[in-house]
Amino acid sequence: MHILAATQFTHAQLDLLFARAEELRNYTTPSQRKELTELHKGRQLCSLFYEPSTRTRLSFEAAAIKLGMGVVSTENAREFSSAAKGETIEDTIRVLDEYKFDIIVLRHHKTGTAAQAAHVSQTPIINAGDGKGEHPTQALLDAYTIYRQFGRLDNLHIVMGGDLANGRTVRSLAQLMSSYPNNRITFISVPELQIGEDIKATLRKNNTPFKETMDASAAFKTADVVYWTRLQKERLTNPAAIPEARFNIEPEILNHLPVHAIIMHPLPRVDEISPLVDSDPRAMYFEQAGNGLYIRMALLDQIITNIL
Amino acid sequence: MHILAATQFTHAQLDLLFARAEELRNYTTPSQRKELTELHKGRQLCSLFYEPSTRTRLSFEAAAIKLGMGVVSTENAREFSSAAKGETIEDTIRVLDEYKFDIIVLRHHKTGTAAQAAHVSQTPIINAGDGKGEHPTQALLDAYTIYRQFGRLDNLHIVMGGDLANGRTVRSLAQLMSSYPNNRITFISVPELQIGEDIKATLRKNNTPFKETMDASAAFKTADVVYWTRLQKERLTNPAAIPEARFNIEPEILNHLPVHAIIMHPLPRVDEISPLVDSDPRAMYFEQAGNGLYIRMALLDQIITNIL
Amino acid sequence: MHILAATQFTHAQLDLLFARAEELRNYTTPSQRKELTELHKGRQLCSLFYEPSTRTRLSFEAAAIKLGMGVVSTENAREFSSAAKGETIEDTIRVLDEYKFDIIVLRHHKTGTAAQAAHVSQTPIINAGDGKGEHPTQALLDAYTIYRQFGRLDNLHIVMGGDLANGRTVRSLAQLMSSYPNNRITFISVPELQIGEDIKATLRKNNTPFKETMDASAAFKTADVVYWTRLQKERLTNPAAIPEARFNIEPEILNHLPVHAIIMHPLPRVDEISPLVDSDPRAMYFEQAGNGLYIRMALLDQIITNIL
Repeated sequence: MHILAATQFTHAQLDLLFARAEELRNYTTPSQRKELTELHKGRQLCSLFYEPSTRTRLSFEAAAIKLGMGVVSTENAREFSSAAKGETIEDTIRVLDEYKFDIIVLRHHKTGTAAQAAHVSQTPIINAGDGKGEHPTQALLDAYTIYRQFGRLDNLHIVMGGDLANGRTVRSLAQLMSSYPNNRITFISVPELQIGEDIKATLRKNNTPFKETMDASAAFKTADVVYWTRLQKERLTNPAAIPEARFNIEPEILNHLPVHAIIMHPLPRVDEISPLVDSDPRAMYFEQAGNGLYIRMALLDQIITNIL
Repeated sequence: MHILAATQFTHAQLDLLFARAEELRNYTTPSQRKELTELHKGRQLCSLFYEPSTRTRLSFEAAAIKLGMGVVSTENAREFSSAAKGETIEDTIRVLDEYKFDIIVLRHHKTGTAAQAAHVSQTPIINAGDGKGEHPTQALLDAYTIYRQFGRLDNLHIVMGGDLANGRTVRSLAQLMSSYPNNRITFISVPELQIGEDIKATLRKNNTPFKETMDASAAFKTADVVYWTRLQKERLTNPAAIPEARFNIEPEILNHLPVHAIIMHPLPRVDEISPLVDSDPRAMYFEQAGNGLYIRMALLDQIITNIL
Repeated sequence: MHILAATQFTHAQLDLLFARAEELRNYTTPSQRKELTELHKGRQLCSLFYEPSTRTRLSFEAAAIKLGMGVVSTENAREFSSAAKGETIEDTIRVLDEYKFDIIVLRHHKTGTAAQAAHVSQTPIINAGDGKGEHPTQALLDAYTIYRQFGRLDNLHIVMGGDLANGRTVRSLAQLMSSYPNNRITFISVPELQIGEDIKATLRKNNTPFKETMDASAAFKTADVVYWTRLQKERLTNPAAIPEARFNIEPEILNHLPVHAIIMHPLPRVDEISPLVDSDPRAMYFEQAGNGLYIRMALLDQIITNIL
């Protein structure tokens, strides 16, 4: 099965995926880790990255290697490959198909490329980000992080802040959470970076209550999950006009946050979360990144074993 | 043994190589593929690419990994390596020799570099393309593709078109086919891109009849193999003067082609073969690329086992 | 344990490391090499290179693979990674920590980065060079090469030439050798490229006699080790003023060198050692590079087994 969008997963599939991720993270001793490399020995993964993404690529490749798969990799296919000579993505994929990989992980700068690739591919394609389009494993690891903390994906108040207009992760997670009952979302952003109308339409359709505000402190008071993102200043028409401090999480604001809440961030972060926050037990962003390893292991495993 | 040029192989060696490629392609089930990774476990391949070539590199590395070899890889040695500091290829190879790889796959932008490297190397070198020089595994996979289709490499009519002057693959294949009896070749190209006099001299010496023409339809009527290549317009002195359609294979011209014939192309293709041709059973170019995997597996295997 | 500087090793640790390197180099037959890949199967190494260094990266990765470790690799993290978006090295390392590698090999353009990384890392960091700072495995392989030749690291006369001011390797080796008794060092360089006052202070403190001279022939007469380096002309204020031939080792000068002596060079070399010297049995620089493989294997092995 191709993995193109986070929305393609049923709730039952997510349950199975998260359960498998939990199992796989328990292979921790040297002998268990050795045993794990027998699991998919003889299988191969191809990393086909048309734009660099060290974190995503390394975690996919680490996941594959931990499961015993072989990996071949290119991290700058855009510049280096036949693409420069005018080859279509369809032709590239048809050739890779012939090399009999078990999975192709594709990152591309152009929205929709993963679907184009999947259309002609016999080999399962995992979309590792296509332009402003989808990045499903990021959404999965976000959901998995929430699930691990609360044991559920419903009945939660999610507060999202930062660049809501352009942030792929925020958009995906909002959609996913609205597919579960009794969640509500508070969006915190300047007018220029508010969440898109398409997402709001989805939330309304799913009866997920949401609010847009610039008052972070108030929103934090009842938050279960704070999901913060980088303000991409280069995309603002008038960066100077933005009250910057409002969008940076400093230790003081944590006084408003319940003890059971978690603070998430897709990383990299720059200064929108102070390093002083890192030692707070609610700061979950590094563990969240680590959950990406186990979600990707589970995903590779379930694709190979035809569970997905 | 170093693999520097397609012409170094005897017909008996090609027979053995093709037979091994056939065997290796039959490891298809998960347990067979797992078994295959035991074959050359403990062996290592080094990919040393001074210019990028995603397809060639990925297929060599996939071949190695499928046989259980470990792989270390650099895809931009020209820019990144000690070469930038003035190190000679001989010194680079002498160092790699000390790292005790079993095979070094070398791609270089300068003609003759593979031979230079082989001259000082204790480790078998495979030339994966050196400038306008040789690219032996491409010639091998081309010959293997013809062999698989016809069960022989003699008594065939090969029609070659495109950039015959600069196309390394066309030149190598013409030479190789002329070493077998009773082949004949038709070259289709504009005057500016005709096959070189050196190749014609080889064909005459080997008594291989050949013809140069611009009438593709007539040539196709008796073709067994159509080998088409990309017209590299940047190399033409007057691109506008060329009747372009004549060099693009469109579905219509296939009416002239025997049902038993095959259409080959080293890829990437741009528009010299219409995508509408892809679904024709005679279109063999993707399978041809795939044959590269098995030829490279067979080659690595026979180098390691000293058959080559 | 993190490996940040050559000076962190006790003499006892060096003895153990060299002994392990000797053992590991004896796995030479196909079945022994296969056996070796069982040793650290299930372990993973991450190559995190912020600037390219083909030789260092390939030898670390070859070392890891030969021990059965899996490897994930990035060779241009500076340009490609989240660093470009403003992520700190600390955050990058915290994320990699979550991916549960057994060792991270870090190369960075900025002095002190390895220590910064180690400060937050749960995963052992090996400094593979940080700017003008340290490159401990180079110093280890240099010392190991001397040790293999003489069976000791004391009572030696070491002659060092080339760019002593900027050469990281020369500085490290001088420090290391001065920690052993009864060594003496002769530095050969133009005034502009003399060894730093900090190194001289260390030698004085350790009672290691040293001399600065421009007379190479005289120094060679009693040399046990000649350690030569590349004159980095781009760093000279007046390159034209330097009597260049004086700093190139040509066959003639070898007449002055004892038969038991060895000639070392960290490589790459340009013209400071003539290729005519290569066939002299005292020319040890390629074997020296090869020793880097075994030192790195021993280092990985002893980190994983908690000997280091």
